[in-house]
Amino acid sequence: MSFMNKAWGATSPEKTEPITITRRAPDDQDVGIDIKFAGICHSDIHTVRSEWGKTTYPLVVGHEIAGIVSAVGKNVTKFKIGDHVGVGCMVNSCRQCENCHDGEEQYCFSGTVFTYNSKDPKDGTITQGGYSQHVVVDQAFVLKVPESIPLDKAAPLMCAGITLYSPLNHWKAGPGKRVGIIGFGGLGHMGVKLAKALGSEVTVFSQTNSKKELGLRLGADDYVATSDPDVFSKLSRKFDLIINTVSASIPLEMYLSCLRRDGSLVQVGAPEKPLLISPFSLDAQRVGLHGSMIGGIAETQKMLDLCGEKLIFPEIEIIPASYIDEAYERVLKSQVKFRFVIDISTM
Amino acid sequence: MSFMNKAWGATSPEKTEPITITRRAPDDQDVGIDIKFAGICHSDIHTVRSEWGKTTYPLVVGHEIAGIVSAVGKNVTKFKIGDHVGVGCMVNSCRQCENCHDGEEQYCFSGTVFTYNSKDPKDGTITQGGYSQHVVVDQAFVLKVPESIPLDKAAPLMCAGITLYSPLNHWKAGPGKRVGIIGFGGLGHMGVKLAKALGSEVTVFSQTNSKKELGLRLGADDYVATSDPDVFSKLSRKFDLIINTVSASIPLEMYLSCLRRDGSLVQVGAPEKPLLISPFSLDAQRVGLHGSMIGGIAETQKMLDLCGEKLIFPEIEIIPASYIDEAYERVLKSQVKFRFVIDISTM
Repeated sequence: MSFMNKAWGATSPEKTEPITITRRAPDDQDVGIDIKFAGICHSDIHTVRSEWGKTTYPLVVGHEIAGIVSAVGKNVTKFKIGDHVGVGCMVNSCRQCENCHDGEEQYCFSGTVFTYNSKDPKDGTITQGGYSQHVVVDQAFVLKVPESIPLDKAAPLMCAGITLYSPLNHWKAGPGKRVGIIGFGGLGHMGVKLAKALGSEVTVFSQTNSKKELGLRLGADDYVATSDPDVFSKLSRKFDLIINTVSASIPLEMYLSCLRRDGSLVQVGAPEKPLLISPFSLDAQRVGLHGSMIGGIAETQKMLDLCGEKLIFPEIEIIPASYIDEAYERVLKSQVKFRFVIDISTM
Repeated sequence: MSFMNKAWGATSPEKTEPITITRRAPDDQDVGIDIKFAGICHSDIHTVRSEWGKTTYPLVVGHEIAGIVSAVGKNVTKFKIGDHVGVGCMVNSCRQCENCHDGEEQYCFSGTVFTYNSKDPKDGTITQGGYSQHVVVDQAFVLKVPESIPLDKAAPLMCAGITLYSPLNHWKAGPGKRVGIIGFGGLGHMGVKLAKALGSEVTVFSQTNSKKELGLRLGADDYVATSDPDVFSKLSRKFDLIINTVSASIPLEMYLSCLRRDGSLVQVGAPEKPLLISPFSLDAQRVGLHGSMIGGIAETQKMLDLCGEKLIFPEIEIIPASYIDEAYERVLKSQVKFRFVIDISTM
């Protein structure tokens, strides 16, 4: 039996407002979750504003979800009522293809079912995200949140956390590896914390030094202002891995010149405009330009377990639902340290 | 004691003509080589025409050199007079840095000494290439040409061969791997032969099907015309590695869509204009865009030994020196099957 719950939805590209949505009753494999907190991701804004293709309105966004299990289907074995859980950017995938088989459900060949604005194969509806009181998700796409992580701080790990952890894990950041993080916002600050937790040496590339002290305090070994023209020559060929979290199209040549042979520059921000790359900047040291999109479910659990063990939490600012539109403006102006998290009890 | 020899040099961006150049006498580590054949590479044309930065005229280009040892310095242990040898794009490097240490001299941090238009650390002159009767090269940068490879066919292996072999080797082309080769010219046809020799399944992407029969005869498993709009959807997510040999800026998005998860698109042609890449085409399957520049000395020897063992030779058209300018025009119009090789005895 489906049920109604309060949510905060985009009714047009211009605004979000209180709406009521219907969630299906949990099927045998589903977990019902009382959402406690939902992070605000730049992707939410792109989707609300129809900047990434057509959005079906009204739409509830939010894919950094943390809450408590309130119902379980009869075949649910992984969770019980009362468990602390999280849901990230995906709620389903085909589970048959090579990528799903490899635990890389985010690259499902038949199409990952995203947490919002995707067609839900279970009931044919358009999926609705986490700016709401409740969500129903197949147990295979629900993550356990370790008790040591407060739920408000768990929320941003579900997207910002895994988006940085996955490339760090895939490209083997660890002791003896030098990692650069471009941009020091919601994604970038998690990159610093996670790269340090994995044992790498970490440098932040930021436009200015305005957040330098904070960057060093949160664990960066070095923090450089890219407005200084000498920075790139000083850091020439120093890095094994550089992760670009900036979602505007910035020139990448200079960062490529900071990679060692066979190093990787990984783009995790998603600019609307294409990247412009000189082939010479790639072949000079056989470096690579890569993309990376969130991470698989097993990898997300591994990240949560690491964060629980090492007490790695995002820096957050908790807001009421009524503040969402204003929060979006502040995100776009990089005026948040470092992630907004909506307190769902204010809905 | 230095000595004069005949050469064919660029005296301006517009033309090449007979000139006389001086070569140093071999030092204790040097090998003197009577050049028999020199291949024509697209890079020669870029350099003659000053399209890759400033060229010092007069300049003798040519970095696909095959010949016979005519002199050896007293510390030369690797070669004796009469040996068949080759010289490719490099004649020296620092031999101290991490990359040289790893056998990747082409990425030397102190600057690889290229076969032409580089400053030679041994005598301070500008290096002069293989369109000449003789060359003197340190033994560390001279390659053994197996007796089973005719010298005329050995020449193009020194650049076209290694340029394709190195990425195939680095990205582990072999049995069970699907390799795509974009462009079917001097580089592309070597890619087909080498990828097949390594055991991969090979598909050529060409603008039209005009060379399809030839492509299949030379070993391609499939040959597709990119003018057919259905090609890319049919080949979606099929390849582990795609090597782009085209030296014009072509749109790469569609090729990126043909890569499997974690696949690599490697650019070996060097367009003058930047590549334009949508970040979404990279993050969709965590694919990478890479450059690759020739290969190391040990890797080049490995390639020559493979070609000698499996009798893998380039398809060539032998020309007299007087034909060089006309040959350049034909290279630019892709009217050569597949590599011009200058018979140095015509000089």
